[in-house]
Amino acid sequence: MDILIKNVLLNNRKVNILVRNGRFECLDAAPGTVAEKELDADGCAVLPAFYNTHTHAAMTLLRGYGDDNPLNVWLQEYVWPYEDKLTAEDIRRGSEMACREMISTGTVFFNDMYFDIDGTMDEVDKAGMRASIGITIMDNHSKAVSDEKARIIRDWKDRGNLTLAVAPHAIYTVGRERLIASARLARENGRKLHIHLSETAKEVQDCLVQTGTTPVRYLDSIGFLGPDVIAAHCVHVDKEEWDILAERGVTVSHCPCSNMKLGSGRFPYELAIASGVRVTLGTDGSSSNNNLDMREEMKVAALLAKVTGDASLLSANLVLQWATRNGAEAFGYDSGVIAEGKLADAVLVSLDNPKMQPCHNLVSNWVYSADSSCIKHVICNGKVLL
Amino acid sequence: MDILIKNVLLNNRKVNILVRNGRFECLDAAPGTVAEKELDADGCAVLPAFYNTHTHAAMTLLRGYGDDNPLNVWLQEYVWPYEDKLTAEDIRRGSEMACREMISTGTVFFNDMYFDIDGTMDEVDKAGMRASIGITIMDNHSKAVSDEKARIIRDWKDRGNLTLAVAPHAIYTVGRERLIASARLARENGRKLHIHLSETAKEVQDCLVQTGTTPVRYLDSIGFLGPDVIAAHCVHVDKEEWDILAERGVTVSHCPCSNMKLGSGRFPYELAIASGVRVTLGTDGSSSNNNLDMREEMKVAALLAKVTGDASLLSANLVLQWATRNGAEAFGYDSGVIAEGKLADAVLVSLDNPKMQPCHNLVSNWVYSADSSCIKHVICNGKVLL
Repeated sequence: MDILIKNVLLNNRKVNILVRNGRFECLDAAPGTVAEKELDADGCAVLPAFYNTHTHAAMTLLRGYGDDNPLNVWLQEYVWPYEDKLTAEDIRRGSEMACREMISTGTVFFNDMYFDIDGTMDEVDKAGMRASIGITIMDNHSKAVSDEKARIIRDWKDRGNLTLAVAPHAIYTVGRERLIASARLARENGRKLHIHLSETAKEVQDCLVQTGTTPVRYLDSIGFLGPDVIAAHCVHVDKEEWDILAERGVTVSHCPCSNMKLGSGRFPYELAIASGVRVTLGTDGSSSNNNLDMREEMKVAALLAKVTGDASLLSANLVLQWATRNGAEAFGYDSGVIAEGKLADAVLVSLDNPKMQPCHNLVSNWVYSADSSCIKHVICNGKVLL
Repeated sequence: MDILIKNVLLNNRKVNILVRNGRFECLDAAPGTVAEKELDADGCAVLPAFYNTHTHAAMTLLRGYGDDNPLNVWLQEYVWPYEDKLTAEDIRRGSEMACREMISTGTVFFNDMYFDIDGTMDEVDKAGMRASIGITIMDNHSKAVSDEKARIIRDWKDRGNLTLAVAPHAIYTVGRERLIASARLARENGRKLHIHLSETAKEVQDCLVQTGTTPVRYLDSIGFLGPDVIAAHCVHVDKEEWDILAERGVTVSHCPCSNMKLGSGRFPYELAIASGVRVTLGTDGSSSNNNLDMREEMKVAALLAKVTGDASLLSANLVLQWATRNGAEAFGYDSGVIAEGKLADAVLVSLDNPKMQPCHNLVSNWVYSADSSCIKHVICNGKVLL
């Protein structure tokens, strides 16, 4: 179906945008252009939609459950016992809530890692979003898939906007041989690898004790790292490790709210940016954030970058790129920017909202001032989801 | 006028709340209670409204202007030249925008410091909010009031919800004698003193060079500190200084977004909390935040407290108290909590919003997950402003 987005602000000009077959066909359609559907976006600006590169969507069920406790109390007394009791239907419901929230906050894609993935996949389809759903591999976890079951990935055909990934949970929950087997399984089938990496100082210390080296070096030594790897967190990564990640083409998913809330530490923005690694943004699950709002994630990232003294570090433009284009590129979507020929993913933001006024700088207002009350419409693949 | 707020969630119970003469008359009005106005709040929870204790409202005009530059470039090349050109009418307009934004984000009171205050006062009246408006005292600043003019505070009668304060800008912009005179002027007239204090490491260094001591000790040595002082920022304050602030009964306005965005540093939460000082929250002006959204300020404060490792530091309940009750108490308003007899200031938050679901813990959802899209109504002094 064609859509004509009328009277929308793009690069400081009011234009009509024609969307055809899920792509931006023309960013300045001539007056009189007709389409099957018209969307009057007068008073709105068009901005790229979000790509959330690290989530546990169903954990929306645990939002606000056991907050403000020390990390080990939160995990052992709240999260794990709760998760043990989750049924497949619970996970479907949690995923449905997550999709609703993501759409209402401008996100069209998420990279997930959780259990009982069928319900999550169904909800993504229903919502009209895109997702990469990780098959979670973990040693000694009742809900993790067996190696046998993980092989479903061989026969699985991508459907619409949905793809599968192989998701070995972390180096401290998956043994060496299984990490190697996971990487092989992903690569033989052209799938992404999704892993938590160097999230806490403890992870690094334990890795040093057990392997004699740090997490990034350890994964590199077993051939795990490559351009198909999405590594979430990377808080405790030294300069040489950033160079390794860059050389291997790894994509990093930075999750500032979660890192702060769990006391994991400050992401080393200076090193990450200098290394040239592709950095993207993720919210992590709602139990450690506690939302899936990528606009807020952008602001918190830009603020946390600056707090140590350099007010010019991580500009609004750069963090918006992390949250949109870089995520799309990491997952091979021809999207993440508003340009002719690109997939039509977009957020239409009301400029009448007090938070968007005055408008010296649209991107700055979007990153530092807006919230989801400014979002009027969300478009994914040429379809209006909100 | 009486208002009956119907079917609203309070402490996990659905109740009808009767507001009379600007106060909560009854938090569980009997069925059949009638009032001149009824507000159906079905699906909403009632929470205390925000008291924003450090703002420069009119600087909303500079939102997003010159962002992401080093601090000195931002100030010298953007902020100061822009401010030089502001007319009294500009300041009125900026204040109007600020009031609109504050109401839409749940704030009913702000403590301001800026120039040409008449327009700001008019807009507060029009908006139906409360404010303390600082008369800004600065050496060598064209827009600062003269000592002569500052004396208007003697004759000024509080009108409605508006009060005046004496606002010597900072120790590095106001000389010793004038600081002393400002304190005297405030105390002779029963007004608050509003000052920026120990915002940056440079302020502390310069103070050491010029006075031989640190900013808090310096202000204490000239008799400035007392229970009528609202000190904004206090980022670079050592343990003994926190004890001094506590002993003098000073109220601190913590502004995490601004401190982060300008690279000023992390507020010493551990010391502040241990000292027993009354901490409140402020957004600072929109040019260094870039909004006036106290909900976001709460989340950023709670996250910044935790980032260094203690996930239990600054709980959702405590930061909500900073943002509401502590601010009300600092300014002598019998408000900041939802209780019978208190001034009827409140935010009605929609529990149907995806960000508020599920609801294991209402306060946690409000602090860590919500945004202004969850706000259905805002009430100040028993009047529905939104």
